[in-house]
Amino acid sequence: MDKETLDAWFAAHRAAILADYHALLRFPSIGADPARLGDCKACAEWIRAFLDTLGFSVDLVSGDPAKPPLVVAERPAREAARTVLLYGHYDVQPVDPLDQWETPPFEPTERDGRVYARGAQDDKGQWFALLQGLKAAIACGADLPAIKIVLEGQEESGSGVLADLAYDLRKRLAADVLLVADTGKEASGRPAIVAGLRGVIHFTVTLRGPKYDLHSGQHGGLAPNPAQGIAALVATLHNPDGSIAVEGFCDGIVDPTEAEFALATEGGFDENAYFEEVGVYPVGGERGVPAIVRNAFRPTIEVNGIHGGYGGPGSKTVIPTHAFAKLSCRLVPDQSPQHVWECLRAHFERHCPRGLSLELTEVTGNEPGFRLPIDSPVTRIARDILDTFDPRGAAFTWEGASIPIVARLRDLTGAAPLLVGFGMQEDRIHCPNESFSLAQFQEAFRWGGLIFPALA
Amino acid sequence: MDKETLDAWFAAHRAAILADYHALLRFPSIGADPARLGDCKACAEWIRAFLDTLGFSVDLVSGDPAKPPLVVAERPAREAARTVLLYGHYDVQPVDPLDQWETPPFEPTERDGRVYARGAQDDKGQWFALLQGLKAAIACGADLPAIKIVLEGQEESGSGVLADLAYDLRKRLAADVLLVADTGKEASGRPAIVAGLRGVIHFTVTLRGPKYDLHSGQHGGLAPNPAQGIAALVATLHNPDGSIAVEGFCDGIVDPTEAEFALATEGGFDENAYFEEVGVYPVGGERGVPAIVRNAFRPTIEVNGIHGGYGGPGSKTVIPTHAFAKLSCRLVPDQSPQHVWECLRAHFERHCPRGLSLELTEVTGNEPGFRLPIDSPVTRIARDILDTFDPRGAAFTWEGASIPIVARLRDLTGAAPLLVGFGMQEDRIHCPNESFSLAQFQEAFRWGGLIFPALA
Repeated sequence: MDKETLDAWFAAHRAAILADYHALLRFPSIGADPARLGDCKACAEWIRAFLDTLGFSVDLVSGDPAKPPLVVAERPAREAARTVLLYGHYDVQPVDPLDQWETPPFEPTERDGRVYARGAQDDKGQWFALLQGLKAAIACGADLPAIKIVLEGQEESGSGVLADLAYDLRKRLAADVLLVADTGKEASGRPAIVAGLRGVIHFTVTLRGPKYDLHSGQHGGLAPNPAQGIAALVATLHNPDGSIAVEGFCDGIVDPTEAEFALATEGGFDENAYFEEVGVYPVGGERGVPAIVRNAFRPTIEVNGIHGGYGGPGSKTVIPTHAFAKLSCRLVPDQSPQHVWECLRAHFERHCPRGLSLELTEVTGNEPGFRLPIDSPVTRIARDILDTFDPRGAAFTWEGASIPIVARLRDLTGAAPLLVGFGMQEDRIHCPNESFSLAQFQEAFRWGGLIFPALA
Repeated sequence: MDKETLDAWFAAHRAAILADYHALLRFPSIGADPARLGDCKACAEWIRAFLDTLGFSVDLVSGDPAKPPLVVAERPAREAARTVLLYGHYDVQPVDPLDQWETPPFEPTERDGRVYARGAQDDKGQWFALLQGLKAAIACGADLPAIKIVLEGQEESGSGVLADLAYDLRKRLAADVLLVADTGKEASGRPAIVAGLRGVIHFTVTLRGPKYDLHSGQHGGLAPNPAQGIAALVATLHNPDGSIAVEGFCDGIVDPTEAEFALATEGGFDENAYFEEVGVYPVGGERGVPAIVRNAFRPTIEVNGIHGGYGGPGSKTVIPTHAFAKLSCRLVPDQSPQHVWECLRAHFERHCPRGLSLELTEVTGNEPGFRLPIDSPVTRIARDILDTFDPRGAAFTWEGASIPIVARLRDLTGAAPLLVGFGMQEDRIHCPNESFSLAQFQEAFRWGGLIFPALA
């Protein structure tokens, strides 16, 4: 297979490819929302039918009928060929705030060469483009490895079903290479091989106080205030210099090697470009640490949401009954998620404001961060392909984000992870008006058309 | 007039009194909500018709047709009699969270001797019961002073209309005594004369960051987080011992006199009863200061609401675009509201987290706290009446709450404030399931029937 053949195939089948892509995006497969379970199942059925046409034998696997099923597929090859396991997810993030979408999130809309929809990039667009590349390779009669696929429906909410079933499925999913289609390009636009991912823990911390909302004049100075308490409690998580103040949280952190640091920082970090794109300068995290290191090689504790009391127009003078914060922590090698969680729990218990009661709930994610070798044989194959995509060649990146299930699949299937994706910052994943450009889509298509034959 | 005559009159006219009371409560007169302007105006019209039957000449006065009008009424008396100005408000607090109401807030419902409705106590129930007492006194041919009434429709949202018009109305409202019907009994249930009220300032502080919600993995450690920032900023307002940390905020505070302190604390403070009633121990405010002093003689900064980012089920890993806190400060003599506001603004500017932008909006309330003489002639008249209501006699209280317009009316009309009300903690004003017992209603009725003739 070569790039020119693939590009010609794409041009010839463009309408059909995009029609299928749009059909896939129309499923509101929000895996975290129980009300969308039927939509998730319908989406999985649609994928089953699609993979069927590529010669896969497909199962929808679910240990619990109340959860979105896994799509598990297999396509044999001649004896002794390599086995490649493709991982992706068909669930998408919630869509609120809905009023900020310019077009409805589940009506894919093309504007200026981009497709706007929830999941257009994360993650439907990524693996679907790659599979269209595989489809082209099959049509062109390319020599292929044995291919296995697992697409889950809960990546955005903790990968519960796959985590639960991974052990039972470990032989069925055993492979040489774990191809992950859920990452991004380098900020400059170079295609990138991910050499590190952060782990993650999510949880909700709630402070409860009065039995009912109290009048803040009658009770001000008397009753402890949960809204004030949650602010004080959250504020204890960081030191004034932005570093993490939770005792023991940073135990065991491994700093990047010189080679890793050199590759990670070779592109530099354009603070003004960052400001232009997102509207803030990159001044989060610990002062005095370079931006790329803060994002890729250091853990974080982020407040994803904080809520308590009145939020409407004007004022309402209450001391509310409760307040909560939704937090997520990104972890790096070699932080133990279990140890981190123990440290957090102890911290919250120690700092719980007087007179209020503490609840820690919705604890999900228990996967460590990890790094990958930058010079293995599989990495070299990938790099050789991606070097042809851009005159500057391929980049290595250490991602701030997490794909918690990757470490677990690696450990259970014995496969060497290879993470290549085509996301860009402007895709605005997890946000209103998520999109994926057709140029990115076509790069992912090429990648799919080239990497499978190369691994045959 | 005497208590027995009034009680007999109440018993004879009970059904009509309560029917009128329910009719008044059915108006959803939420003065802060522009969508309820029509309901506020209809409520004012209903009150006009009611006062008309008592021989008042009534005007609805509004400088701005988009705001709830003032009800201004006048009932003359013989030459040289005292003039009494009655103040109350017909607007009510918002009703959210609506799902916590056992019966709808604007369908008054009687259960176990209590009337449940928004405004049942605060403040419709209080002044309406008092006016029913006046009606009985009129019917019984009592000698009465000249009576003026001003009922506003914006007390719960800053008293804007009345504050704006008070200067123009100062001659029309000029009086000897300013009778305020918007306060409570002592915690033990003794009738009480309010000897002090706190002032109040409300405002909203907002921190703005990214142009759109960011992925907290991709951007964690890079982008400054407004939800984290608002927690950190709010946490700077208090010292670890609970005292206020805003420089200059407490300048000029006048401690209670020995006589005031003795009267304020003579009833003691039952911490266990407080816990039983509201579900928390009174451990808010500054450590080491007695509860009654913290509530009545010290200022507060309370968080009435804090909001930013995701608040739904599960997790959504975002760094939100903005977060805000709604705050209110209670002030005591001799704090200058203007000076306090300057101190707060300087504090927020000094502590605004790096990379985020600060907005201070919805600033309302600019009235100081004040204290009243505990031994003036009018106070003695009131005390003599209230001493007959309870074998323990009347109490003096220093309220933690605010009626910001009182100081202004006092200054403009020259009237000596007299604040007597019959609220109790269990009335849950400002909260779901607000109520007023018929026993309290009847006490307010008696008070109205006795105080006007006594001031003739």
